[in-house]
Amino acid sequence: MRQVCQIFVLVLGLGLSLNAEASGGSFDRSVRTAENLEPAIPHPQQQEAALAKLAALKQEHGKRPNVVWIVVDDMGYGDPGCYGGGVMTGAATPNIDRLAAEGLKLTSCYAQQTCTPTRSAILTGRLPRRTGLTRPILAGDKVTKNPWEDEVSLAKLLSDAGYHTLLTGKWHVGEEEGMRPHDVGFDEFYGYYPAQKEISQRVDPRRYPGLVLDAQRLRGFEAVGPEDHLTHGFKGGGTEQLAQIQSIEDMGRADKVLADFTVAQIKELAQQEKPFFIEHCFMKAHCDNFRNPDLGSLSQSKYAYKEAVAEVDLHVGAIVRALAEAGVLENTFVFFTSDNGPQMDAWPDAGYTPFRGAKGTTFEGGVRVPGVAYWKGVIAPGRCSNDVFDLMDLFGTALTLAEVPPSKLPADRYYDFVDQTSFLLTDRGVSNRETAYFWWGSELMACRMHEYKAHVKVVLPQATHMHIDMALLHDVGLSPWFFNLHLDPKEEMPVGHRLDPWLASVLGKLKAHAATFKKYPPKEIGL
Amino acid sequence: MRQVCQIFVLVLGLGLSLNAEASGGSFDRSVRTAENLEPAIPHPQQQEAALAKLAALKQEHGKRPNVVWIVVDDMGYGDPGCYGGGVMTGAATPNIDRLAAEGLKLTSCYAQQTCTPTRSAILTGRLPRRTGLTRPILAGDKVTKNPWEDEVSLAKLLSDAGYHTLLTGKWHVGEEEGMRPHDVGFDEFYGYYPAQKEISQRVDPRRYPGLVLDAQRLRGFEAVGPEDHLTHGFKGGGTEQLAQIQSIEDMGRADKVLADFTVAQIKELAQQEKPFFIEHCFMKAHCDNFRNPDLGSLSQSKYAYKEAVAEVDLHVGAIVRALAEAGVLENTFVFFTSDNGPQMDAWPDAGYTPFRGAKGTTFEGGVRVPGVAYWKGVIAPGRCSNDVFDLMDLFGTALTLAEVPPSKLPADRYYDFVDQTSFLLTDRGVSNRETAYFWWGSELMACRMHEYKAHVKVVLPQATHMHIDMALLHDVGLSPWFFNLHLDPKEEMPVGHRLDPWLASVLGKLKAHAATFKKYPPKEIGL
Repeated sequence: MRQVCQIFVLVLGLGLSLNAEASGGSFDRSVRTAENLEPAIPHPQQQEAALAKLAALKQEHGKRPNVVWIVVDDMGYGDPGCYGGGVMTGAATPNIDRLAAEGLKLTSCYAQQTCTPTRSAILTGRLPRRTGLTRPILAGDKVTKNPWEDEVSLAKLLSDAGYHTLLTGKWHVGEEEGMRPHDVGFDEFYGYYPAQKEISQRVDPRRYPGLVLDAQRLRGFEAVGPEDHLTHGFKGGGTEQLAQIQSIEDMGRADKVLADFTVAQIKELAQQEKPFFIEHCFMKAHCDNFRNPDLGSLSQSKYAYKEAVAEVDLHVGAIVRALAEAGVLENTFVFFTSDNGPQMDAWPDAGYTPFRGAKGTTFEGGVRVPGVAYWKGVIAPGRCSNDVFDLMDLFGTALTLAEVPPSKLPADRYYDFVDQTSFLLTDRGVSNRETAYFWWGSELMACRMHEYKAHVKVVLPQATHMHIDMALLHDVGLSPWFFNLHLDPKEEMPVGHRLDPWLASVLGKLKAHAATFKKYPPKEIGL
Repeated sequence: MRQVCQIFVLVLGLGLSLNAEASGGSFDRSVRTAENLEPAIPHPQQQEAALAKLAALKQEHGKRPNVVWIVVDDMGYGDPGCYGGGVMTGAATPNIDRLAAEGLKLTSCYAQQTCTPTRSAILTGRLPRRTGLTRPILAGDKVTKNPWEDEVSLAKLLSDAGYHTLLTGKWHVGEEEGMRPHDVGFDEFYGYYPAQKEISQRVDPRRYPGLVLDAQRLRGFEAVGPEDHLTHGFKGGGTEQLAQIQSIEDMGRADKVLADFTVAQIKELAQQEKPFFIEHCFMKAHCDNFRNPDLGSLSQSKYAYKEAVAEVDLHVGAIVRALAEAGVLENTFVFFTSDNGPQMDAWPDAGYTPFRGAKGTTFEGGVRVPGVAYWKGVIAPGRCSNDVFDLMDLFGTALTLAEVPPSKLPADRYYDFVDQTSFLLTDRGVSNRETAYFWWGSELMACRMHEYKAHVKVVLPQATHMHIDMALLHDVGLSPWFFNLHLDPKEEMPVGHRLDPWLASVLGKLKAHAATFKKYPPKEIGL
């Protein structure tokens, strides 16, 4: 099976049913409960225990729990101390480490391989290939169809269900009207539409002299360039442009402004009757990073990226402290993560992953990210799991926490999330997800199943290091590249023809996954 | 400066003093206090605080502290959970993780790049290039001169100073008379002379059919092959051969037998007036690993290497528990480490390092190892440091703990250790070592200084993966390969001509280091 298109053909040719993978074997335990829902491993007792826990909590607190997602931009799997970095890589992360030590540290938590795909996937519960948001939307990008028009975001679902929904920080899933956070379901947005570099390039003559020092180009750029104001928007209400980024120092200060806003909002929202959903998206540590001039040096290394990691950690501490001070820590599900692997093109303004590849590849370095679930008094401290978790699972888990029934989801489309409430909340919980699938634009690339991963296509950099900007898409050889990630987390030693009895099982999963796109054709948005 | 020999020539030509590196700058702070001692960074207050702590402890316990070193064979930096592995790599290590969480986790702890060199260096406080023990001694290896004859081992120094000194487990620094543990200073030895594979090959027909299934070869091999009995030896006393390894199951059981012995000895030695020094050297996880058939499956992965990691962790727990139950945990310095990086030739019977290279190379993958210092009530819990530490520093630290004055060391030779007592024992202690040097046989290869590392030669594998058995020694290009390990722990992005102001400083260190070999010529033992 050399190519995904061949898999498609094979699937069609053999008329495989969508239930093909639910064979019930010990390696293959996931079960499909509906044609349009991702199969999951049934854990009825665990599920029951989790729901009982939630019921008791509701009894105690008198309302449904708050949900706070903290998403860092381009932070590498290895950057936090609890994932092997910290002081080793020149930036201690005591606050993130504390969340991990007092919560559940996931070591096989997956994002998409770039920004927009991940951010849209966790809010829609659907793979980018389905929604059309298959690559980062850059300033000036035009789509032929607004992908959000017929998507139902988690923010909308929770807002409709009585939550106050707020996105603070970076958006990066479209800045045109109709695609902004407060257009797609968030009650409130306070942040920036694009990534840091898109904003700061206009004011950084050292990195972008050909733009900043050329008055004519600069005027032209400013006329069409990305939105670089801090923006405050409300659903159905106004959109206010606040301060504009005028210098790299302003850019350096942005995350403190954003964290202060989230902290203040937490204190206010905690007083209200409504529960809240906050997605706090850091601008850092996406290139280009600038030290916050008000904070002094925070890291051991002192390079801009490391300062960014240390500052992110500081604000993570402040956000969790705000929840505690507002008295809602024990009724708030907190999840900390990053949107993809480190962007090595930007090095030395780049993160660290111990794995092969980086942002923009579907090797582990591109898609495996930190993932910490923290809930004081609910998630047992000191847990660590290597079970497969996909950030899209946050979508399904949030629905359960907010008591939004599956019937609220349109039945005409495929959902890729798995509800992981029982995995995350029960003391010895195991994952309900058996497989994760990796796409690169419109190409189905790879599948992780238990400790194995099969690649049917790979993205390889031209340099010896890991670049997204000079990478090539390759078909693999005569057989998929198959790795045992327990033995070979760096994906160097293929075991497709030895040392594994599971290649066919994993390929079966890939086939069944591909078949869902036949039944539910992907949306084309002209990106 | 392309080659070490050129550095030698340059050093001689310019007549550089051995004090050349002690310039007192902020990047370069180490000071040489004697011609034959490695320079160290002076920290008088920290030193005073540590000595006061030791004095108070002696007052409390009425004797000097015990010293327990736990050395795993070929365990990768990344294998323990607290170093990024654990469940992620298929073998949880709760006991090692607990030591790290309740002690000091070192993230820049260095061994030599193979076994015999590390094991001899920590017992002599001297680099292998000085003692002649520059590569693993294999069965049948003959030396022209017994290197131990004129070395003064730590075991001898501590024994002379009133300690009971015991080595349990793997020795691998010579099995001929005069080179055995109880010949070189240990009061007692209970273990095996060679590595696991050297022993088990005689009884493993699946891996070694050309030996085991060929009766004539087998007889010949047994006549000259390595010693494969468990051996109990005493200084100046008898050497008893106990059970011989007769099967791979026996080999799988060996570490449990050894751990049981150390546990029993701890309970007995704790009752005595003498303090004790125990070096517990695991047979595992050097290839070839065999599951201990008495213990059942211990790891998530279940591969032999992973079972070995999990079993090592189990025994680490038992040894520390024995210290607690014997009532001496608060008067015992415990140090956990590995002797070099993972041996990737043996994969899948091999460990995990997130770094470049593996055992047999002087990249970080070969020499950076786990290093956990644990001392209940003395070393503050939760410490983590990226300061440079060389396993040879255990030699100098043990001397201080045992109150052996520097005057006991012969003045006619160079010592490479740095006394790290104050770093390890004081709550905010920083390292007294500024640099570590890396040799490969008789070649000076590289220097780590603060977060930088300069390679003047490199060992590169011929395969894309990391093999010691098909590696080549290369001169680097026109300038040393220079890496900032904070930014680039995987040594991929050279900064020799950019992004660093320190290349000359680090090369100055290399020159000064090379000069010590002129003043104190290396010993040749014909290995």
